[in-house]
Amino acid sequence: MAEQTLVDPANWSCPAPIRDQPVVVMGHGGGGALSAELIEQIFAPAYGNALLAGMTDSAVLQLGGARLALSTDSYVVRPLFFPGGCLGDLAVNGTVNDLAMSGARPAYLSAAFVLEEGVQLSVVERIAQAMGEAAETAGVTIATGDTKVVEAGHGDGVYVTTAGVGLVPERVDIRPQRARPGDAVIVSGPIGLHGVAVLSVREGLEFGVEIASDTASLADLVATMLDVTPDIHVLRDPTRGGLAASLNEIARASGTGVRLNERAIPVPDAVASACGFLGLDPLYVANEGRLVAFVPPTEADAVLDAMRAHPQGAGATRIGECVTEHPGMVVVATGLGGTRVVDLPLGEQLPRIC
Amino acid sequence: MAEQTLVDPANWSCPAPIRDQPVVVMGHGGGGALSAELIEQIFAPAYGNALLAGMTDSAVLQLGGARLALSTDSYVVRPLFFPGGCLGDLAVNGTVNDLAMSGARPAYLSAAFVLEEGVQLSVVERIAQAMGEAAETAGVTIATGDTKVVEAGHGDGVYVTTAGVGLVPERVDIRPQRARPGDAVIVSGPIGLHGVAVLSVREGLEFGVEIASDTASLADLVATMLDVTPDIHVLRDPTRGGLAASLNEIARASGTGVRLNERAIPVPDAVASACGFLGLDPLYVANEGRLVAFVPPTEADAVLDAMRAHPQGAGATRIGECVTEHPGMVVVATGLGGTRVVDLPLGEQLPRIC
Repeated sequence: MAEQTLVDPANWSCPAPIRDQPVVVMGHGGGGALSAELIEQIFAPAYGNALLAGMTDSAVLQLGGARLALSTDSYVVRPLFFPGGCLGDLAVNGTVNDLAMSGARPAYLSAAFVLEEGVQLSVVERIAQAMGEAAETAGVTIATGDTKVVEAGHGDGVYVTTAGVGLVPERVDIRPQRARPGDAVIVSGPIGLHGVAVLSVREGLEFGVEIASDTASLADLVATMLDVTPDIHVLRDPTRGGLAASLNEIARASGTGVRLNERAIPVPDAVASACGFLGLDPLYVANEGRLVAFVPPTEADAVLDAMRAHPQGAGATRIGECVTEHPGMVVVATGLGGTRVVDLPLGEQLPRIC
Repeated sequence: MAEQTLVDPANWSCPAPIRDQPVVVMGHGGGGALSAELIEQIFAPAYGNALLAGMTDSAVLQLGGARLALSTDSYVVRPLFFPGGCLGDLAVNGTVNDLAMSGARPAYLSAAFVLEEGVQLSVVERIAQAMGEAAETAGVTIATGDTKVVEAGHGDGVYVTTAGVGLVPERVDIRPQRARPGDAVIVSGPIGLHGVAVLSVREGLEFGVEIASDTASLADLVATMLDVTPDIHVLRDPTRGGLAASLNEIARASGTGVRLNERAIPVPDAVASACGFLGLDPLYVANEGRLVAFVPPTEADAVLDAMRAHPQGAGATRIGECVTEHPGMVVVATGLGGTRVVDLPLGEQLPRIC
């Protein structure tokens, strides 16, 4: 559209004047408060149904006697290729993981490309091959697709939208509303790698060691966890907006509080250095191969053991618990004995991260 | 991408030099021969499965005891609003129709937006509302979604990708490979309206009367046809590439010939005038609310009667038959007693038509 936003997201302040603008800003795609407002104020009323209001990564439906999960995401990451993966890996793993976060066994994906005129066919081919390989690793089939082409200057090489369906086992009921005080909060491994990896190539930064994205399918890890107990309360993959956004959504949906132990949160040294250098908080940085789980306290140790025995959960750690205090809020007990509130981000620290 | 194509699609000639270029051109999104080459040469090998090779509008799968259809399409139509509808209507009806073309009863959709920074929120809202209304009319639920935002100059206001699932009734087996010599070829109503409607607003042309897009759900019409007989051989909605592309794909997939009676093809006067003026062939112009059916000759009259009694099939007409001669080819018997070959288009006469 010809009309430009008058707001520079780099100059955001609080309270954010951006919400008074009648135009789309980058933050609407960031998975934070602005994204939630789009859903609450525009999409849910327009579609007129209750499923969207659940704010889950995937919808769970009954169809033909089967209990299905359905999910979709568009992928617009920039650059297309980065250490540890590419847009193709994200497009498969991201939708596979969204299905897995409802406890589903992902089965089939669709893949729709919006290509920009002039992009090399070899680039399209590399992305498609990465998608095929990621699908094979995740145990899913890309069953159908579509391709559209837009004129140069109306895209950015390749955008891919995947959707997926999977089967949700009986007795499994995983959703943010089910968090209960006492639940152990477990993260499956070190955080912040995807966001820092993308940022490092985008901005041409070097941090001494190469940081690779954690993009991976979590479907098998989830199946392993469900083998321990079907009574896992909540699963979430902390992508856009990072751990902070996921935990805030869970706290709000369930009306419980979340208390984290800062020292227990696994932040790799390289991520901590990069975030310190750039003024980012690792809690808000995107991950593409991690999950956070809310598990009843009686099951927590057994689930942790099973996760640590799985390649995708080797770094699994208990980082906090669900509490009755401060309902709807996420609080971190700092290493110095204080506490700080971790709020829902307004937008995204790093746009176009997935 | 910075690299521009060196080929001007306006100067296409045959044999097409465009195929020797290693870059994406507009024709790759046109639903013709170039689109088919992308699938055959890049996507099907990369994804490594046989479902894609079927070249159907939707994949039919077994999952949890249910027989499901899964389909997806991205919508990049320009302009966003046109007589008879908008991008939102297309995004719902298009995917609903792709599901219906395998005989499925569409049930649930996903909707993923790629928004360009700076687009008015009111535009997003109008499109979302049109989607909600179209979904209600079609009897489907938009169950899940996603929103990404890209910087100004990397999109075109709003792109929407929908995916959908539906249930395929037992005994129904509808796919292009099932066309048989003797089958009646039936089109559900007048052709060319969508393409001419979009073109008229895009180019600021007036044709005396306003031509409105035919965008509509065909799900209920298909259910009505299947009530007459489950033994419908092929269904296709002739969108990009028009009736010519759909019939060529069916002829090639089934190894049969298709012979049309030019006088029987329902081309509205306004479409004929516009096409004559613009040098377009109505057989290649996109439709968004029409289907073409291949029906056993013994069932053809009963199916036609049922279609004509349905609002979406009021203009249903038998336009030709499936023959043993010229396998893989589509031929039209002209009004002057001659015949001409109708080939698969290379790209699309009108880019970004859906």
